[in-house]
Amino acid sequence: MTKLQTKAEERLIQDYFDDLMKACDRKVSDEGKVRIQKAFEFANNAHAGVKRKSGEPYIIHPLAVAKIVVEEIGLSATSIIAALCHDVVEDTDYTLEDISNLFGEKVASIVDGLTKLTDEFTPQHDSKQANNFRKMLMTLSDDVRVILIKLADRLHNMRTLDSMAPNKQLKIAAETLYIFAPLAHRLGLYAIKSELEDLSLKYKHPDAYNQIQFRLQNQREKRDYLVTEFIRPIDEQLKHEGVDFTITERLKSTYSIWNKMQTKGVSFDEVYDLLAVRIVFNPKTNVSEKRQCFDILSLVTDIYKPKPDRIRDWITIPKANGYEALHVTVMGPQGKWVEIQIRTQRMDEIAERGFAAHYKYKNINDVENELDRWLQKIKDMLQNPESDALEFLDEFKMNLFSSEIIVFTPKGRMVNLPKNATIIDFAYEIHTELGNHCIGAKINHKLVPVSHALQSGDQVEILSSKTQTPQLSWLNFIITAKAKTKVKQSFKLDRKKHIEQGRKIIEDQLAKYKILPSSDTLKKLSAYYSLTNKEQLYAQVGMGFLELDNLDEVLQTRRENKLAKFWKLSFYPKKEEPTSTGKINKKAPFILKEDPEELNYTLAKCCNPIPGDDVVGYVSDDEHIIIHKRNCPEALKIMSQQGDSIITAEWTKFKKLSYLSRIKLSGFDRVGVVNEITTIISKQSDINMRTVHFDTHDGIFEGDLYLYIHSVQDLNELISRLMKIKGMDTVERIEKIQQ
Amino acid sequence: MTKLQTKAEERLIQDYFDDLMKACDRKVSDEGKVRIQKAFEFANNAHAGVKRKSGEPYIIHPLAVAKIVVEEIGLSATSIIAALCHDVVEDTDYTLEDISNLFGEKVASIVDGLTKLTDEFTPQHDSKQANNFRKMLMTLSDDVRVILIKLADRLHNMRTLDSMAPNKQLKIAAETLYIFAPLAHRLGLYAIKSELEDLSLKYKHPDAYNQIQFRLQNQREKRDYLVTEFIRPIDEQLKHEGVDFTITERLKSTYSIWNKMQTKGVSFDEVYDLLAVRIVFNPKTNVSEKRQCFDILSLVTDIYKPKPDRIRDWITIPKANGYEALHVTVMGPQGKWVEIQIRTQRMDEIAERGFAAHYKYKNINDVENELDRWLQKIKDMLQNPESDALEFLDEFKMNLFSSEIIVFTPKGRMVNLPKNATIIDFAYEIHTELGNHCIGAKINHKLVPVSHALQSGDQVEILSSKTQTPQLSWLNFIITAKAKTKVKQSFKLDRKKHIEQGRKIIEDQLAKYKILPSSDTLKKLSAYYSLTNKEQLYAQVGMGFLELDNLDEVLQTRRENKLAKFWKLSFYPKKEEPTSTGKINKKAPFILKEDPEELNYTLAKCCNPIPGDDVVGYVSDDEHIIIHKRNCPEALKIMSQQGDSIITAEWTKFKKLSYLSRIKLSGFDRVGVVNEITTIISKQSDINMRTVHFDTHDGIFEGDLYLYIHSVQDLNELISRLMKIKGMDTVERIEKIQQ
Repeated sequence: MTKLQTKAEERLIQDYFDDLMKACDRKVSDEGKVRIQKAFEFANNAHAGVKRKSGEPYIIHPLAVAKIVVEEIGLSATSIIAALCHDVVEDTDYTLEDISNLFGEKVASIVDGLTKLTDEFTPQHDSKQANNFRKMLMTLSDDVRVILIKLADRLHNMRTLDSMAPNKQLKIAAETLYIFAPLAHRLGLYAIKSELEDLSLKYKHPDAYNQIQFRLQNQREKRDYLVTEFIRPIDEQLKHEGVDFTITERLKSTYSIWNKMQTKGVSFDEVYDLLAVRIVFNPKTNVSEKRQCFDILSLVTDIYKPKPDRIRDWITIPKANGYEALHVTVMGPQGKWVEIQIRTQRMDEIAERGFAAHYKYKNINDVENELDRWLQKIKDMLQNPESDALEFLDEFKMNLFSSEIIVFTPKGRMVNLPKNATIIDFAYEIHTELGNHCIGAKINHKLVPVSHALQSGDQVEILSSKTQTPQLSWLNFIITAKAKTKVKQSFKLDRKKHIEQGRKIIEDQLAKYKILPSSDTLKKLSAYYSLTNKEQLYAQVGMGFLELDNLDEVLQTRRENKLAKFWKLSFYPKKEEPTSTGKINKKAPFILKEDPEELNYTLAKCCNPIPGDDVVGYVSDDEHIIIHKRNCPEALKIMSQQGDSIITAEWTKFKKLSYLSRIKLSGFDRVGVVNEITTIISKQSDINMRTVHFDTHDGIFEGDLYLYIHSVQDLNELISRLMKIKGMDTVERIEKIQQ
Repeated sequence: MTKLQTKAEERLIQDYFDDLMKACDRKVSDEGKVRIQKAFEFANNAHAGVKRKSGEPYIIHPLAVAKIVVEEIGLSATSIIAALCHDVVEDTDYTLEDISNLFGEKVASIVDGLTKLTDEFTPQHDSKQANNFRKMLMTLSDDVRVILIKLADRLHNMRTLDSMAPNKQLKIAAETLYIFAPLAHRLGLYAIKSELEDLSLKYKHPDAYNQIQFRLQNQREKRDYLVTEFIRPIDEQLKHEGVDFTITERLKSTYSIWNKMQTKGVSFDEVYDLLAVRIVFNPKTNVSEKRQCFDILSLVTDIYKPKPDRIRDWITIPKANGYEALHVTVMGPQGKWVEIQIRTQRMDEIAERGFAAHYKYKNINDVENELDRWLQKIKDMLQNPESDALEFLDEFKMNLFSSEIIVFTPKGRMVNLPKNATIIDFAYEIHTELGNHCIGAKINHKLVPVSHALQSGDQVEILSSKTQTPQLSWLNFIITAKAKTKVKQSFKLDRKKHIEQGRKIIEDQLAKYKILPSSDTLKKLSAYYSLTNKEQLYAQVGMGFLELDNLDEVLQTRRENKLAKFWKLSFYPKKEEPTSTGKINKKAPFILKEDPEELNYTLAKCCNPIPGDDVVGYVSDDEHIIIHKRNCPEALKIMSQQGDSIITAEWTKFKKLSYLSRIKLSGFDRVGVVNEITTIISKQSDINMRTVHFDTHDGIFEGDLYLYIHSVQDLNELISRLMKIKGMDTVERIEKIQQ
């Protein structure tokens, strides 16, 4: 202990350390504990006097990370020591050699892996962020513990995100959601994955997060009652059978509720309605675990009627991340579907703690190890010299697929693929040559094209032709990193070449209209296609993804300012602090004001935000700003890959300008209902309609309307007015706008 | 024994009787055997001297039926005695009173039930055939044994169909396929159902039947090898576990192979490829049967990888006909899917022998009895005074649904429905009032219209409105007898009223064009809509199913004889025997000649037969003939309901006339392939094309062509020529022609 710390700080640090040692209690040998004590003293000394943003002594962070490592991931002494020292080499004068001398080669090499991962919190050039991920993943092949400790590090940072500036919070939350949560999922760390997602949501969409939390709290009692009632007969029967078990409700995470509401367009109640319980038991040794799971399934379905075709056997064929369990959905006594997950304690530990637990049990469970195969794939990918850092990140993310399908070769070999994988993905998965020459496939004796998406259970016979070669157009539908890499390789598609090709195409096109490729023109074009800079524009055009058929029109429109009314906004910094770049202060939220005169900014076309939406701004190199909705996938990608170029943004009142929005409605048809709807929109709400489309069949109508709206508030008011129409069933906002 | 029989006949009869007694051996009490002996002597005496069409003594038939009753259905003494006497009251001078005196009330009442069913083999008025079915079913509610003995009777008649005239063979085969095989299925008599179907196919499509039989024989050896290889490891493992079991291949019936080839448009090999094996075991008494089935499932999937989501648990929720088993589909060692059916001996007996076995085990298996509920439904239907015999038959047939779905009410109650049942069917199933006022439903919180077809596992919330009333248009999509009956009732739709309404509508329409409703005009109209007489035409129009928008056009075309080239044929009887009606001899096959001058006949629009197809002719009251393909569902209905008005028909060579046919093709697209196809059709085969439609996407083309063809032979030649084109994948004939 050093004098740079106050007595109070010392006590605080000691408390944290005691906590850590308690967590180590039965998991670490006495010899290990001595080494951990030594590591703590070393690190505490090294970081002495340094404070975190929150004001706490810096050592609190490594202590907390070490505790997560032992308690929540289940790693042991070496990893705990590495976690304690993970910032020493980077932030202090000590070297890796010092660590090697003190704690041995292994710890030093893990700390080296963690040190390479430069801190994402300091501002840096854009591509550096993606490069960091790449470096981090490089270490995967050496020692997977680097990644596991990195996840613990990220988890603690997320837990203490409050003290950060809003734009940093947003960046870190996006990054977490984009790469760390999927990574945790891929490694089977369900608990950590859920917490990372929930914390990300808390900072990205605080209102939504709080609302869901509130409602969860609110319905707790009623819910507990339902679960208790449902569980009772199962509990009795299992006890009667002499099974050693626990049965608990499986709670949905806040994020997963929000995500389902967003993606399926349903209400909180509809998501929350679905109960799930988990039976975890201690298996008897004389019969296989799987058989005992099926015995419990048999017993449970004697009590409750199962949903047809909803038995999921993840024991015979575990998920790619090692998950094992038997799932069945049954009709509960209250007329609600309830999912029942049946697992042994071993399976449960693998499910919650993933990778580490998986290795612990490796000898028991000798199914082919999907995780090892996955690691091999990552290694292959890392050895591909042609992909740049951003591409690599995208492809890596693709390999973190969470929902997966199982398909079969003509000889019956099983192949795991991500959902929506196509014929070409399958062909490359089998063999590169088969992919290169693929012209289609037969599934159940039926001919299907190369772009056909596979279904779980398909048996796929690839048809090939010697004259076939990889097609550029395949990149539009293939989804596995392996297939993408191979196709690109075969085209020797390096980014430079694309950019050069794209530049030429654009300049030729512009020349046709006698327009110079000025920086202003290129900025306009990039903005129109929601791209962040001219390099991206060139590359997209060069790869053939963007066709410039209406180039003239695009530029024409901009010049005549026709769309300006709906597409441009001005930004004013809240406080006029001069920043390091002298232009936009990214630390303070920007206020979006309604001022049609200063039109330097664009609303992204991918998500069409309107005033009142949770938004984020991307600041390009030339201070051009694009506004995205925060839940826009494109925005998530930008925030994760180029997180230092974002700013938070807030709306002021918007009363003059209108923004194009789209709503869909459905309900029971009756005479005059369409007129009633349009009256409410036009007369009562004074909203202009651009397009109106109504369809009716069998007594049900469906409407698809494009409206000019001032703000989210106005839109919500309109929606609640429309919902009051007799026979109206749903009214929902649609983000995708077809121009 | 009477002197009317020769010594040889006496020996034959004694052999049959000994066979019967052997079958009764352990199943019938000694007292029962004495009564059976007495019944045989009584019946033998009563039928003495009478011969079957085959020349055998008549008593052979009741003896054979009695043997089926005991051996294949598993009924006992009372039913055997009733079977022996089933034709006595009808064909001899003995009365029911005699039978009652000799064998008791019960036997007499069963014989009474069987006697009511007048013999379908004697010519009679059309509606009588349907009325017979109705009468037969009336007895269902009294004693289900009547139906079971009737099925045995029909099975023996089918086994001895060879001695009948061709038109009778066709009629009986069609009837069997239309009503008796589904009835056997509904009662769970799988073995009898399969044999009835196979025998029907043999007489309806002798060529197809023989071809499939030949190929089955041919591939026997290879198949046996595959099955043996597949079974071995399962066999070893089950023995190792000490299970008392048999494992056998489940053979597909000839009919089911043919039917799949027809309905799915696939080849013999594709259907035959699919293996299925059956594990039948003797369960241990200390654990539930279901659990033991799951244990075997668990063990089997340790050996072979299961197909995702293909576990079918028919034990927890048995099929509507009582079938119980656990099914799983696994990937066999040869890369082929194999379905494994796991059953206990009890389940197996129920599966093979159905109803009777089901009752035997009723105490053991106390799941809610679907069969009892089904019987109640039939009773309800029989009590509906408004439906006429034909309608009743249709509705009854609808209730024999074989594939079924399971859906749930909002409170979680399970409801069995036929496949493709809609919201309205579900609503009426729950409650008549709910059906009457139904305006739509919510499935998984999504609004769906009344015509929406349900999926297994759906939870359905019916939405109703007090102002809603049953709609005539519902009859276009609802499929359960209950819903149809209720909707019709609510309209008080009796046939007479329809006919009257329809007559008025048609006459008004004709008057517009100044056409008299002459018998000729009505005949033409009926023929155009593939209806058999003017009553049907009136009724269809009266119910609003047929709209006469293009009445003018229809009649115009006929008068100008535009369609004649493709739609009319003349019939010449093979031998010019005068028949009882003095016009068409229905007993001899009619020869379809190519003679455009005599155009009194029509090719049915529903199935568009062309020369060479297996066809059947329907002779209307006024000697108008309509030619259908034999596998046309419409023809099957007519043959079953109005079987005395049909004639067999044969084609002569057709070289002058052409008939509109449709083919679909698919394959790999390449430059010039369309031209190659059309060249082969036009130039090499000299066939005219009416419509040509080609689509290509992702390197695959699909074509839909309407061609004018002379005969099936020409069409088959064309198809094999087209199949030789490089890249061609499938060429198939489509029966549905859009005019």
